[in-house]
Amino acid sequence: ESEQARLLKAAETFVRDYAREHAGAVDPDARLREIADEVAAKGTYAHTPEELTYGAQVAWRNSARCIGRLYWNNLMVRDLRHLAHPDDIARECFEHLRLATNGGRIRPVISVFAPDAPGRPAARILGEQLVRYADDPRSAERRARAQELGWKGGEEPFEVLPLLIQATPESDPEFYELPEDAVLEVPLTHPHRPDFAALGLRWYAVPAVADMTLEIGGISYPAAPFNGWYMGTEIGSRNLADADRYDQLPAVAQLFGLDASDERTLWRDRALVELNLAVLHSFARVGVTIADHHTESTRFLAHIERENRHGRAVPTDWTWIVPPLSGAATAVFHRYYDPPDPLARPAFLYRPTPWA
Amino acid sequence: ESEQARLLKAAETFVRDYAREHAGAVDPDARLREIADEVAAKGTYAHTPEELTYGAQVAWRNSARCIGRLYWNNLMVRDLRHLAHPDDIARECFEHLRLATNGGRIRPVISVFAPDAPGRPAARILGEQLVRYADDPRSAERRARAQELGWKGGEEPFEVLPLLIQATPESDPEFYELPEDAVLEVPLTHPHRPDFAALGLRWYAVPAVADMTLEIGGISYPAAPFNGWYMGTEIGSRNLADADRYDQLPAVAQLFGLDASDERTLWRDRALVELNLAVLHSFARVGVTIADHHTESTRFLAHIERENRHGRAVPTDWTWIVPPLSGAATAVFHRYYDPPDPLARPAFLYRPTPWA
Ligand code: HEM
Ligand code: HEM
Repeated sequence: ESEQARLLKAAETFVRDYAREHAGAVDPDARLREIADEVAAKGTYAHTPEELTYGAQVAWRNSARCIGRLYWNNLMVRDLRHLAHPDDIARECFEHLRLATNGGRIRPVISVFAPDAPGRPAARILGEQLVRYADDPRSAERRARAQELGWKGGEEPFEVLPLLIQATPESDPEFYELPEDAVLEVPLTHPHRPDFAALGLRWYAVPAVADMTLEIGGISYPAAPFNGWYMGTEIGSRNLADADRYDQLPAVAQLFGLDASDERTLWRDRALVELNLAVLHSFARVGVTIADHHTESTRFLAHIERENRHGRAVPTDWTWIVPPLSGAATAVFHRYYDPPDPLARPAFLYRPTPWA
Repeated sequence: ESEQARLLKAAETFVRDYAREHAGAVDPDARLREIADEVAAKGTYAHTPEELTYGAQVAWRNSARCIGRLYWNNLMVRDLRHLAHPDDIARECFEHLRLATNGGRIRPVISVFAPDAPGRPAARILGEQLVRYADDPRSAERRARAQELGWKGGEEPFEVLPLLIQATPESDPEFYELPEDAVLEVPLTHPHRPDFAALGLRWYAVPAVADMTLEIGGISYPAAPFNGWYMGTEIGSRNLADADRYDQLPAVAQLFGLDASDERTLWRDRALVELNLAVLHSFARVGVTIADHHTESTRFLAHIERENRHGRAVPTDWTWIVPPLSGAATAVFHRYYDPPDPLARPAFLYRPTPWA
């Protein structure tokens, strides 16, 4: 099967899905003839703005690991396909963060930059998220890479790493410091313990995944950063708590005077609750959107109901949907789901390496 | 494929596995000829006591949902295959509980009663576990059944249900009150809150699953109750906490003065920690074996290492192994496992209904 045949097949599935979900808006046969002509001439085709918006939204809807899908059709889709140069991508990533931050009322946004074309892969953003900290063990590679390229930071705790954008597999990445006005951060305080602030913990407001490829109708958009708002446990039970991340449970336990010499005191479980409480409290205090895992679980079940009413399955990965804190106390724990479908498209896909 | 052919095939796999794991102890070809003769004559065959012990232990080892498998070859196997009458089964179930309880130092035990034979299914124990309470919503059916049969209890909280044992699909079950000396119970207290006791919560010491069929080498043992010790979260995060079980989080929250009007106070998470702490504390206080989920997680990873050193896979169901409390804070959360193998034998199998 040739590359073009594969592309046309994927386009056909996508266009027919689009037409089915937008009754009367488009003649799929006509549109597919158009695409076939374009592919024959150029080896690829361009989505209409409407297709792009729909495609990105459905990629979210198809994300089996995402508990936040209730709002899938409220995704703000920024059509930036005309931008391929790292400077332009960086500038618009900053703008993405400003739009998403929205003064604290976080909005789900995706910025779609130039897609891959046959024999001409598009630029890649290196690193998991637009905003990451230099002292997060998970970002060690990005930090080293930035320093190799001449970045001078990385000494302070919670220092925001520069964006790394690579134009082609052969070129070195460029690095771009994030402007201060693009990165809203929340210092962590605790509702009942003023001395919690002395731990010096903080986190950023907008989780924007930058290293997944958005695939729509056979077209790959490798630079398509997207964000939602945080669910508190991502910060309180993982980023700040995991032993191979910020590993803060021992420090929190000490602050609260917990006996960490014996697992049976459940000091880890107690420290987790305090840390998660601090996260939710601190975001609320400075007016930044964040969801607790109980509420987000209830919303997710509402999402399933609504999707089922529309006759759609909701492929779901239980192991990712069940929150990492108090699993069985959330509504999502106690049921089975439609199985994830790795072939579902549109989708956000992992890349083993940026260029593979 | 005839029933006998299926049985001989299963026996062959089992006997060869047994022989491989007991080098020199048995000539598998000779043993298989013996089995073939027996099956030809009677339509079934009997395991040697050694085969039964090994089979039950490996059924445990193969239990993809069990985090407690480190001790799989310390399972005490009671060979009670000569017993098929409900009276005898009941009496030996009581003895099982006494042996397992062992004054608080819980021992893993299985009691294997008469197997199914062609056209002659063996007796069944009805109900999930040997010990269950009448006011546990999960035992509503057993309670109703017991009352239909003439059981007079069921008015008090945490009343132990009688055993229901059914000799044949056609006969009514018999019911048997559990003698007091067979059921050790633990009243729940909290290390820092004397008023916790006023909630009136308690739980039994020995979780003994009674409704799974032990299948070894093609032979089905439907009455083969087995027990380990409790992992605290089973009681503190599920039995007493689940909304469709004892639903105690609101009461615990009230006792601790938590603000349950807003999910963001994490009152559920906090109440869970208190409840789980009370469970671990109370069992320890009265000298009954119980494991916390952190320790049991570490042991399970030690189990995997040891099994791998013996060249064996450890089929594992992540969704059951990761504890329902503070999932990501346990060592078992952060990895992948060998996938469960529904065809692995020996095994403990579900039955859709007692006789199916
Ligand atoms: C609106 C609020 C949102 C919430 C609360 C939310 C929540 C989550 C959570 C908790 C995870 C698991 C993260 C982890 O454990 O690492 C997740 C994963 C994911 N979400 Fe969402 N999400 C939101 C918006 C979005 C949006 C806007 C998109 C895409 C347009 C998206 C796509 C995904 C994908 C692809 C994953 C899987 C990531 C991976 O495999 O690493 N989510 N989401
Ligand atoms: C020695 C201490 C043991 C511990 C701490 C332990 C722990 C656990 C836990 C926490 C579960 C999940 C229960 C649930 O969520 O409902 C489980 C499931 C299971 N365990 Fe163990 N276990 C132990 C001993 C045993 C023994 C002795 C056997 C059999 C000989 C066994 C066989 C199983 C099986 C078959 C399941 C799955 C039950 C089902 O599917 O409903 N376990 N175990």
